[in-house]
Amino acid sequence: MKIEVKLKDKSYFVHIDELEKIELDTKVVVVTNPTVSAFHLDTLLSKIDALECHVVTVPDGEKYKNFETINQILDECFLHRLDRKSVLIALGGGVIGDMTGFTASIYQRGIEFIQIPTTLLSAVDASVGGKTGINNKYGKNLVGSFWQPSAVYCETAFLKTLPKREFSAGMAEMIKMAVTFDRSFFEWLENNSLHVEANLQYALRECIKIKADVVSQDEREQGVRAVLNYGHTFAHVIENETKYSKYLHGEAVAIGIVMANELAFELGLLSLEDKKRVNLLLKKYDLPVEYKINNIEKFYDAFFLDKKSFNHKIKFILAKGIGGYIMKDDIEKSLIFKVLGNFS
Amino acid sequence: MKIEVKLKDKSYFVHIDELEKIELDTKVVVVTNPTVSAFHLDTLLSKIDALECHVVTVPDGEKYKNFETINQILDECFLHRLDRKSVLIALGGGVIGDMTGFTASIYQRGIEFIQIPTTLLSAVDASVGGKTGINNKYGKNLVGSFWQPSAVYCETAFLKTLPKREFSAGMAEMIKMAVTFDRSFFEWLENNSLHVEANLQYALRECIKIKADVVSQDEREQGVRAVLNYGHTFAHVIENETKYSKYLHGEAVAIGIVMANELAFELGLLSLEDKKRVNLLLKKYDLPVEYKINNIEKFYDAFFLDKKSFNHKIKFILAKGIGGYIMKDDIEKSLIFKVLGNFS
Repeated sequence: MKIEVKLKDKSYFVHIDELEKIELDTKVVVVTNPTVSAFHLDTLLSKIDALECHVVTVPDGEKYKNFETINQILDECFLHRLDRKSVLIALGGGVIGDMTGFTASIYQRGIEFIQIPTTLLSAVDASVGGKTGINNKYGKNLVGSFWQPSAVYCETAFLKTLPKREFSAGMAEMIKMAVTFDRSFFEWLENNSLHVEANLQYALRECIKIKADVVSQDEREQGVRAVLNYGHTFAHVIENETKYSKYLHGEAVAIGIVMANELAFELGLLSLEDKKRVNLLLKKYDLPVEYKINNIEKFYDAFFLDKKSFNHKIKFILAKGIGGYIMKDDIEKSLIFKVLGNFS
Repeated sequence: MKIEVKLKDKSYFVHIDELEKIELDTKVVVVTNPTVSAFHLDTLLSKIDALECHVVTVPDGEKYKNFETINQILDECFLHRLDRKSVLIALGGGVIGDMTGFTASIYQRGIEFIQIPTTLLSAVDASVGGKTGINNKYGKNLVGSFWQPSAVYCETAFLKTLPKREFSAGMAEMIKMAVTFDRSFFEWLENNSLHVEANLQYALRECIKIKADVVSQDEREQGVRAVLNYGHTFAHVIENETKYSKYLHGEAVAIGIVMANELAFELGLLSLEDKKRVNLLLKKYDLPVEYKINNIEKFYDAFFLDKKSFNHKIKFILAKGIGGYIMKDDIEKSLIFKVLGNFS
């Protein structure tokens, strides 16, 4: 099946289990890492029919999502003299997708790229919607661009080799979407196991439909798209504090969801029962729901580097019941401190 | 007076001698270099009314148009915690404009920027149209983005402090536009001096009108915009060979125009007389019209890194008489070698 991401300039399809052949009358560079490459590169290469096909393997991990690796990918493009019609293919998780997309957006002022996610997290979230970028010492994804892929291929076969922990991390993004946009999907997630293949395909489709719909409405995140950052305002600070090494992104998001829900609960937006249901669903997939904040002032201060904070206002995305959301940028500092205090 | 650059997503104005006050309810970072700063920074700062206004001074020169300087500008943005509504202002020539625009396009996935050109070259060409980028060891502007400014302010007062050589370099881009798009403007340039202020203002307007019109038709250079690269296919190789140090960009373009005209002449597109008239106009502004190619094979080979070369085809922009153009990507290698031979 396929889901269209409708955009003003350029629409494209997210294909679920439809990868037969990629035919391109151009040069191609596949970007991947050693972990993914060992499992899936041969399969992918057997499906690519291009003028030339090269592979660049970059180090695996969030900490390599930086300018140095971008330069490594760029060098490969220059080495093989890719032109403006050439295509990059991202084979990997969110890190590979973000860096490949960013490179595609700046190589010769922009070339096409295709996303082939190999993690659940990137399949349901990162691969769709054209957010690209890298991290730096100031925080996550602070440098990047909006650059849409020309196609996305999600293959459940590629997700089977995922370590359990990585799979769970992807679940955090699924739960994020269910809590803010779709109560019945949330209930479905409570009652079904994603370890059944047909269920996984169904859940992928539901999430990608939500994501595609949100991105179509608001490509550049000037409105509703920010809701997808539910949990992320906290998660980015957590990832930064723990130097991107202790938690996978999805794990940090899980903690971020718990924190955001604590705030929503204090504001009377989320009932105690709903808050508990979300925690329970996160735990069902062995996601972390606790975190120890050592320095509340410092944690609070780090919010202001978030891209959604304007002029000393932090924008929080909060659940309004399960299946609803609200954006607030006028929450009292004292209340935020109180909530952060619950984690210290 | 002002000229509109009409774009599908976002139109903006190029103002000529209309800079009174820039009022912004956001943080601002002005990007400039020591040379420009000494002449014009105080004047500009006196006209900016913003929430916060910071200045970052980067080294002067094409050879600093690289990732290192981009990181210096990014650092300044992070240091002052610019958010997605903040604005960068480029005060300088093409190098400053290209780097400021590129930084604006990738800081937090894109913020606004304003161009204030202080060279003739950037006033008539680089500042308008949203091409941003940096150089690397493979060539010029090979990494960058299309990112439109939100406004451009051309002040003839700022151009008065230009060294004569820099002024001439800008003339090369003017002559480029006249030759390919506007025969009567070419004739006007033959008969008038740009050192008269009213004439300069007139010529600025004519060039910016041409540029705005071309960009409106073809923002991403998939068609007619490539014509603005008349002379540049050769110029980029020359600049690369001479390591961006011997010639100013406009000077390399002047030589590139001469080379392109030699090719057009061989193809019967340009008469001997018209070829001579263009040379004469270039010389009127003391622009170089000669170049010594040491290794023709190597020179030819370097064409293929040009962004306009696809799959081993070089796209040449040629004058078709004065005031017309043609794009050709099927010129015999032997003919190109013959023309290059004229310069060896």
